[in-house]
Order: sequence, then structure tokens, then C-alpha cells
Amino acid sequence: MRIRLLAAIAAVIASPVAWSIVQTQQAASLVIGNGIVITVDGSRRILNPGSIAINGSQIVAIDTPANIAARFKGANTIDATGKVVMPGLINTHTHAAMVMYRGLGNDLALMDWLQKYIFPAEAKTVSPDFVRIGTQLAALEMIQSGTTTFADMYYFEEEVAKVARAAGLRGVLGQTVIEFPVPDAKTPADALKRTEAFAKQFDHDELITPSIAPHSVYTLDAKTLTAVSELARRLNIPIQIHLSETSAEIGMSQERHKQRPVAFLDSLKFWAPTTLGAHGVWINDDEIALLRQRGVGISNNPESNMKLSSGTAPVLKYRAAGVNVGLGTDGAASNNDLDMFEAMRQAAFQQKLVSMDPTAISAADAIEMATVAGARAIGRNRLGSLAAGMLADLIIVDMSKARQQPLFDPVSQIVYASRGDDVVTTIVNGKILMRDRKVLTLNEAAVLSEVRKAADLVRKAVQ
Amino acid sequence: MRIRLLAAIAAVIASPVAWSIVQTQQAASLVIGNGIVITVDGSRRILNPGSIAINGSQIVAIDTPANIAARFKGANTIDATGKVVMPGLINTHTHAAMVMYRGLGNDLALMDWLQKYIFPAEAKTVSPDFVRIGTQLAALEMIQSGTTTFADMYYFEEEVAKVARAAGLRGVLGQTVIEFPVPDAKTPADALKRTEAFAKQFDHDELITPSIAPHSVYTLDAKTLTAVSELARRLNIPIQIHLSETSAEIGMSQERHKQRPVAFLDSLKFWAPTTLGAHGVWINDDEIALLRQRGVGISNNPESNMKLSSGTAPVLKYRAAGVNVGLGTDGAASNNDLDMFEAMRQAAFQQKLVSMDPTAISAADAIEMATVAGARAIGRNRLGSLAAGMLADLIIVDMSKARQQPLFDPVSQIVYASRGDDVVTTIVNGKILMRDRKVLTLNEAAVLSEVRKAADLVRKAVQ
Repeated sequence: MRIRLLAAIAAVIASPVAWSIVQTQQAASLVIGNGIVITVDGSRRILNPGSIAINGSQIVAIDTPANIAARFKGANTIDATGKVVMPGLINTHTHAAMVMYRGLGNDLALMDWLQKYIFPAEAKTVSPDFVRIGTQLAALEMIQSGTTTFADMYYFEEEVAKVARAAGLRGVLGQTVIEFPVPDAKTPADALKRTEAFAKQFDHDELITPSIAPHSVYTLDAKTLTAVSELARRLNIPIQIHLSETSAEIGMSQERHKQRPVAFLDSLKFWAPTTLGAHGVWINDDEIALLRQRGVGISNNPESNMKLSSGTAPVLKYRAAGVNVGLGTDGAASNNDLDMFEAMRQAAFQQKLVSMDPTAISAADAIEMATVAGARAIGRNRLGSLAAGMLADLIIVDMSKARQQPLFDPVSQIVYASRGDDVVTTIVNGKILMRDRKVLTLNEAAVLSEVRKAADLVRKAVQ
Repeated sequence: MRIRLLAAIAAVIASPVAWSIVQTQQAASLVIGNGIVITVDGSRRILNPGSIAINGSQIVAIDTPANIAARFKGANTIDATGKVVMPGLINTHTHAAMVMYRGLGNDLALMDWLQKYIFPAEAKTVSPDFVRIGTQLAALEMIQSGTTTFADMYYFEEEVAKVARAAGLRGVLGQTVIEFPVPDAKTPADALKRTEAFAKQFDHDELITPSIAPHSVYTLDAKTLTAVSELARRLNIPIQIHLSETSAEIGMSQERHKQRPVAFLDSLKFWAPTTLGAHGVWINDDEIALLRQRGVGISNNPESNMKLSSGTAPVLKYRAAGVNVGLGTDGAASNNDLDMFEAMRQAAFQQKLVSMDPTAISAADAIEMATVAGARAIGRNRLGSLAAGMLADLIIVDMSKARQQPLFDPVSQIVYASRGDDVVTTIVNGKILMRDRKVLTLNEAAVLSEVRKAADLVRKAVQ
């Protein structure tokens, strides 16, 4: 027995191939094997089949299944045969807790909708607990539909942060600053104080990036916008702002500030190292050049812009100018879901329709916007593509349904024939949040039970 | 024992309530109980909760669960608690077998796409067997996403008819007539002969309505279009034609026929008792008035029109004028699926965007277009709404997913937050085609296996 073992060891040592494997085989916390890998790296490479080795929070290698098997021993493995593996989706603009108002007043003129439904509902329902419950529902929906990072603007963002951290999602979470009293701040000064406390509470968090969210130029004066900008730079946190969403906003800005929104903000030296403009619909060529120069990113929200008749963002021009344009769903009250697959499809459809050019925003472009371009727009260069050294945020997508057959082109099939529900596994920072459609970090039944109770508050608020 | 039984019978006879139940209780082949019933009848009534009694192929009553339970004894019952029950969706324009080209060339200029991908693929692959396989895949997808009737334009429509009949779907199936040689006809005269044989083969079929599908005014001359019209009237079958889909089509019609498409067809007295114009995008106000006068229905295909940059149909004007406008997906090669839930959402989104009016095409309007208005557009007045005397084509939709919570408004939730995959049960002509997501009339594994083999033919054809 001992002799046989020694002989075996001798044989291994004697074999140059086996020896090189033993020598070079590295530890990996997770190996995802044999998938159709859409890398979304600079070269738009697709590895089919491909495997990915993850260690801790980052991707350590992407290669053929044989090479990965030779180089890595995974503590945990997932077989992705026949499935797409791609970067997790980055929702660059949402108000997560507003899922609680999903379907509350639809097909109304914007001001009717806000004044009859959303504002009364918010005034009577928004509390730390309500935000916690709503964000849990949103987190469930995001994990189930392949979103791994979300940029949020709402109230009580510390509650949003706690939920995101517990759910395992990455968040760029913007504390709202607005001139009228809101549930978490009586004045903009209160909101600035809240932001500072929030930023300290979640300083250097692995998943949470605190952020400040001045609502817009039509709900804030020059003094407050300047204070926001100074605070953002002092704390080194990103700014998120609604920017030129509607033509009405342009009119209000011109009336109140005597300038269009971009020029007004520029005159205040408003821009922080990371500034994200949400919507960016009513933007002209000069403004695009200026935004590019100032390094401002844009969140394109095609579904919300269509449903609310806001207009069409000049996405082709932004991209041609080198502005980073990500995709967002906006809040579920105006979408009505948080499905980034639909955002990708709509981004392509809307641009093709308005430009009258079917080559505008290809499926590959749409995936890029939902991943790596969105990552850049929120100032996160280690997110949004699959390559060694990137953070391990990725999703595995089932491609076996009748409506996804035949599979000629996985990139086209992801954008034009798949949806959030096809995501089977969601991984953030190397941690599995959902596996085979089972969410591991949230108790779905408990979340939905709390949602039902909170929904009754909303019903009463708009009666 | 005998005495007790007699006493029980005596008690029943003595009770006026029980006696009235015994007296009036009618047979029903199927009772769907306790759902959220969106009737899509003239009053847009929602019965929550509501039950539906079906006998054979038709709906015999809709009422409260208590009243239906009192009046009907169902041989079969389905509990729809918490689920939406609504009319089956009517896809008024598709090329079902083209699911076989799903994702084959995307984001290309129309002529590039047709000439490099679709035409070569069709020339080399379309056969009766290929159409059978493709239509089976489409039937699977349609049943799984709640479509109960489809209006088709393709080749070898007798194969489409056989598949639809076996799958249990209702079809208005249009044999294509086009001036160049196609896989099932060397000349338009051949196609007319095929149509006549096809119409005889499926005459008075419960599910199949044979139809004739002259491709368009830019691929047919006056003589053939006149012959098509005469045949349609002689056989009393509906006509389906691509009508003013692109601006290029208007130019071609003016060059070839010296008139715009609608005027040209009208000059030929082309219209049959049921004529369906697919797309109807480039249509002016005078043409709308004429189409209304001639009783022509329109199939609006928002997804295809956006993806191919065709333009936006004047849906609001059609509806204001009283033209029946249904919804269609078009073929999956230009969509890329057959999901009528997406068609509803896109119909609303596209009109809201282009009209800049968020009240344009409400969720209720979109459901109406996908059901009862579509039924009228294809000349089928006993389809598309849930009421006693209507044919029993209906679907049951799950509303329990996280992305569908909370449920304030079922109509909004169906259009803006649900999708084909949420359909759990599909019923056509009183027969259950899918129950709890299990398709009963097709063998999914066998269908997909044939699809994989046929897909290899397509790959070779476009190499």
C-alpha cells in the first residue's frame, strides 16, 4: 500500500504535464464553467464555451473550460452549460422604494399623476420602515432580474443602504436634497446634514457608495446647489441629479435661473469628480460637448421617458461625443418594473424609431450601456465587464425557453428575446445572491407579507 | 339507513333554496372560479372576484363566484384565486414559422437584412416540413404567452393549419401571393390555385379560417391584386395585406402604380368583406377616412415598426375615426418574439412618446386592442371579450411575482408589469391547451429537438 502510494507520487512528479498543473493550480472560491460568456470587454469578445474563475470578490481569470480546469480548483462550482454568463446589470437611475407605488395612477398627464397620486402617497406613507419594506421588494426584484448595482435617489437612504448590504447588492445611494419639506428633511440644510452623517456611516463600505442627490434645477436654488457641490467634493461622493428630463424643466430653469439647466449648473461650478445626470433628454449639441468636457455621465431611461411622454435622449450623439451613457429603469411607479432587460430592448427600439436608422443602438451597444458604460457613468471602472481584475458581479441567464429558440446569436437573444425572469443566478462581489432562481439573501415570503401590509397604507393615502 | 336517506331527500325537497338550486343548476364543461376577471366588454367591467362558466366551446355565464356556484356544476374546475382571467390575446399579424429565423441578422438596414439573411435563408430552407417545425415552435410560444388566435401570412399555409388545429389554436391563415417565385408557388396563379384548394380543405373548420395574403402593392400588379380580391369574395375569405408599412413602400407604389397604396387598392375595388391591413404606418387622414368607410381593419405592430425603424402608425387617429385596430407581433425575425404582452406595452409606450401625451393609449386601451378590437379587425365578433355567448378563448395570468407587487390596478399590472411567461393557463374554444404552465397539446421536448435540427439548415443557408 505504501509502496503503491509512493509509486503514484513518483509518477506524478515524473510527469511534466501533471507537475505543471500541480505547480500552477490556484485556489478559486468559485468557478463558473462552460457558459456562453459575453465579456463586454473592449473587444466585445464572446467565449463559447468559456469558464470564469473567481477568488473572493474578484474575477481572476476567464479562459476556455479546459484551461480554467487546469489552472484553478474551485471551492464552489456552477455549471453554466448552454447558458449565457455576462456582467451584472447596472441600473443607473431608480427610486427603489417607489416599487410600493407600482401601478398607482397610470396613463395620466404628469402633473395630475404626481399631484393626485404620488405626492399624497409619499407625504402620508414614506417613513424609515416604509423605505425599508419598499427597498426589500425592489432588491428582490433586482436580484431576480439580474441587476447587481443600482444608483438610487430617495429619502432615508441609510435604510436603503442597510437593505442593499443585507441583500448583497451594490448601491450608489443618493440622499435627496429638495427645497420643500420632505419626509426625512424639513429643509435642504437638514438634507445636507443627513448626507454627511450617511456618508460617514457607510464610509469605505464594500458595497455601498454614499451619494448626494439634489433633485433638479427646478426644485433648488443656486445657493443650495452650490452647497451640495461643495459637500460632494469635500466628502468625495458622487452627485446624482435629474437633468433636463422634460421640456417643462427647460422652461422652468430659464424662468427661475435665466439659463438652461446645464449652463446654469456650469455657472455654479456644480460638477463633482463623479456627476450623473438622470434622463438628459432635452440636451443640445453644445451641452453635450460641455457635459463631455466636465466628465458628466448620463442615465438613459427609455421606458420612463416613453411612458411619461418626456421625449427621447440624444443617445447616439452622447455616445459619438464620448459621454458615458448608462441605462436606468427610473422608479417602478413610472416604468412599471425594474427589469434592465426591458431597458436594454427599449433603449435600442426607441433610438431606432426616432433616428429612423435600424442600425442605431445594436444589441451589443445596449448590453454595453447596461453594463460597462453604466459603470463608467457612476465612476466605477472595476464593474461592468468580465475580465481578470474586475469585481465579480455577474449573472447567468437561461437560454432554453421556446421563445429563445433557435439560438443563432446570444447577444441578440439577450436583448431582443430574453427578460429578467430568465436570469437564474446572480452574483455580486463574488457572493451568490440567487442560485437557480432561489434568492439566498432575502426571505421572499416575509418580504411580500410586509409589502401587502404597507400597500394598505398607500391605498388609504390616495383614497 | 333507508329512512335517513329518505329524510334527507325530503329535507332537500322541503327547502326552497336547495330546491331552486337543484332546479336551475346547469351543466358546464368547465368552471373557472374566483379570479380577477377583466371582461373587456363594452363597459370595461372588472369582476373581482368573478367566476366563469363554460359549456363546450362557449362562455355561458360570468358572475360572482357564489352565483356561478349556485347555477352551474362544472365537469372540470380551475381555481383562479388571485389571478387575472381575461380574453385570450389575438395576434393580428405574424409570420409564425419565421420564429426559425429569430435573431438571424439584427440591427441592419432593412434591405441588407432581407438580402443577406432572410431571403437566402427562406430560399434554401422553406419546405412543408420546415414550416411545420417552425409553426410548432411558434404555437408553443403563443400558447405559453397567452395568444389564442393568430393571423398568419406565409407559405404552405395548409401545414400551418394542421399544426394550429393539432395545437388547438385559432388561426386566420393567409396563403401568400407574390409576383416572384417562392417556395410554394412559381407564379401568382399557382398561389391563387393553392389558396382555393386550401380554402376547400379547411372549409367550415372550427379553428381555422383560410385567408389569402397578397404580399403588398409593391410586389404585385393590378391584375393579380384584382384576381386576389375576386377570389376572396367568391370564397368568402378574409384578405390580409402589408399596407403602407414603410415610407419606401409609398414611393414604390407611386412609381409603379402612380398612386399611394390605399388609393391604388381602392381604384381596383380591392377590399373584401374582411380586409386586414398590416402595419398601416404611412397613412394620412383622408386614407383613414376611406379605410373606415371600406371597413378595413388595421394591425398595429409597434415592436417591429420600432426595431426596423419603419415609423409610427397613427393609432390615435384610427381609433378616433372608428377603424378597428388590433395588435400584432409581426414575425419573430423582426421583433424578436411572439409575446403579445410586450406588444400591448409597446403600443402604449410608442403612442405616448410620439404624441407627447401620456394619456394616449391607456393600459385598458392596449388590452382592448390586443383582444376585442383585434377580433373585429379580423372579422370575428364572437372573440375578444368575456361575456355569455362569446367563444371560450381565455387565459389565466399569475400575479404573484415580486415584480407584480403591490397589486393596486390589475389592468395596469397586466400591461406594464406582466409578460407572456406569467400566463399559467390558456383555453381556446373551451379546451385547455396549457394548464399551470404545462402545454397539453404539444410535446415541447420533441418540438425543440426538431427545431435544433432545422436550425442547422438555416445556419448553412446563410454561411
